[in-house]
Amino acid sequence: MHAGPPTSLQDVEQFADRLAEAVARTRSQLCVGIDPVPESIPDGVGLEEFCRGIVDAVAGVAVAVKPQAAFFEALGADGWHTFLETCAYAREAGLLVIADVKRGDIGSTAAAYAQAFLPLADAVTVNPYLGGDSVQPFLERAREHGSGIFCLVKTSNPGSGDVQDVELAGGGTVWQRVARLVDSWDAHAVVGATYPREVAEARELMPRAVLLLPGIGAQGGQPSDLAPAFAAGPASALPSASRSVIYASSGPDWRDAAHAEAERLRAEIWEMAQVG
Amino acid sequence: MHAGPPTSLQDVEQFADRLAEAVARTRSQLCVGIDPVPESIPDGVGLEEFCRGIVDAVAGVAVAVKPQAAFFEALGADGWHTFLETCAYAREAGLLVIADVKRGDIGSTAAAYAQAFLPLADAVTVNPYLGGDSVQPFLERAREHGSGIFCLVKTSNPGSGDVQDVELAGGGTVWQRVARLVDSWDAHAVVGATYPREVAEARELMPRAVLLLPGIGAQGGQPSDLAPAFAAGPASALPSASRSVIYASSGPDWRDAAHAEAERLRAEIWEMAQVG
Repeated sequence: MHAGPPTSLQDVEQFADRLAEAVARTRSQLCVGIDPVPESIPDGVGLEEFCRGIVDAVAGVAVAVKPQAAFFEALGADGWHTFLETCAYAREAGLLVIADVKRGDIGSTAAAYAQAFLPLADAVTVNPYLGGDSVQPFLERAREHGSGIFCLVKTSNPGSGDVQDVELAGGGTVWQRVARLVDSWDAHAVVGATYPREVAEARELMPRAVLLLPGIGAQGGQPSDLAPAFAAGPASALPSASRSVIYASSGPDWRDAAHAEAERLRAEIWEMAQVG
Repeated sequence: MHAGPPTSLQDVEQFADRLAEAVARTRSQLCVGIDPVPESIPDGVGLEEFCRGIVDAVAGVAVAVKPQAAFFEALGADGWHTFLETCAYAREAGLLVIADVKRGDIGSTAAAYAQAFLPLADAVTVNPYLGGDSVQPFLERAREHGSGIFCLVKTSNPGSGDVQDVELAGGGTVWQRVARLVDSWDAHAVVGATYPREVAEARELMPRAVLLLPGIGAQGGQPSDLAPAFAAGPASALPSASRSVIYASSGPDWRDAAHAEAERLRAEIWEMAQVG
């Protein structure tokens, strides 16, 4: 299973440094979400073929991909196999892989999850509702592997305010409280690109964190609104688009269309990051 | 995949009613958590053999089992297969199955998860941090299937207060706010048996919900502290024990020992529920 920690953690290059190198190499801060919905995949294209095709189309244009576990799990055991396959294939193609699993569980279970997912990917997403002892096992394993942990802080969906925007007695909101915890844990954060004001606030609350910013494109987020996220350095934010890239065309040109849309976004984000 | 909703939802018996019938039939409100850790499984016993053995040992004594997805996922594709197997085997044995998957994702992804998990189990656990639109697809599918949705409200782990106990500007705490949302959604709730005062408060905030109360036994929760949870009726609460039952013995008598510990808890909980 797991070979144990290396003799010195200082020998392990940590996620933020690996990301910075990859950004410099690819001149890209774009992350592409891989959310394979059977109804949206071009006719006659299999799940695995689609996922590999998207990886091929965006390699060298995106710096990272974010396969979303739920869509694969919904397709049963074969789907799960393809999830693992896609993670491996993307890493071979030189992309960083953020496994979007959104797990969160109590201590011993969190350790089991960390053991399951961290060797597969460069980073994973976790849900912080259960508190620090649910995130700690992920952080410990992550340091050993040089992996990144992205905690959900302010999510991109319309209903995210139900819990996250509730106002606290001491001032601020639930998500701002979570942002402070994430900063104290030295973790990274997910903040919806659909909430630009919160993205700017998140940057201030978590000055050291890489911000993963999903919701570009189909969900309505605009790269041009995200400049403040890059204030901590050019490799400090990863805007992420899913449907607008991977389903850019449902015709036989789906690979080329995905490549073209990814390149369009890459250039737009790159230009903004130099200013930010 | 999914056969679509029946002609009338009134024809589908809902989870709380199915639970009440099962409680009356088994004279039990005990839920047994199945958390298979390789190091704790008796020597020479395989994962699938262990899970089936536990199901056999507690059938007729427990009313439900709660296989914890993380432990199975940590064991790779074979582990996931055994998770699905164990759910099916337990239902055949007449147990209600609560798939402890703690999923939470944005709308379209939540729908994919609901489609994946609800046909496998009688109920699932979900994480509410992402808000109502992440839980709604689960609730909609659940009504079609007559399944239960248990939202994490106040979890049993020591660190659960980091986010859940934070005080709100309008009074109360984050978890109490979530409890009110859960009540408005007509969903069920997970409240840690390790926090008896919160269990009593949760009963008042969610008078219609079934309360799943993990943390009995190894985590320190005591059935005798949980009487208030049963105030809404004898089938309104499910105390859940995991390690103290399934690892009651590491010797060749592991099945008998699990049965005996489950029966001891069943009787203790049953007596208390009649009073509560």
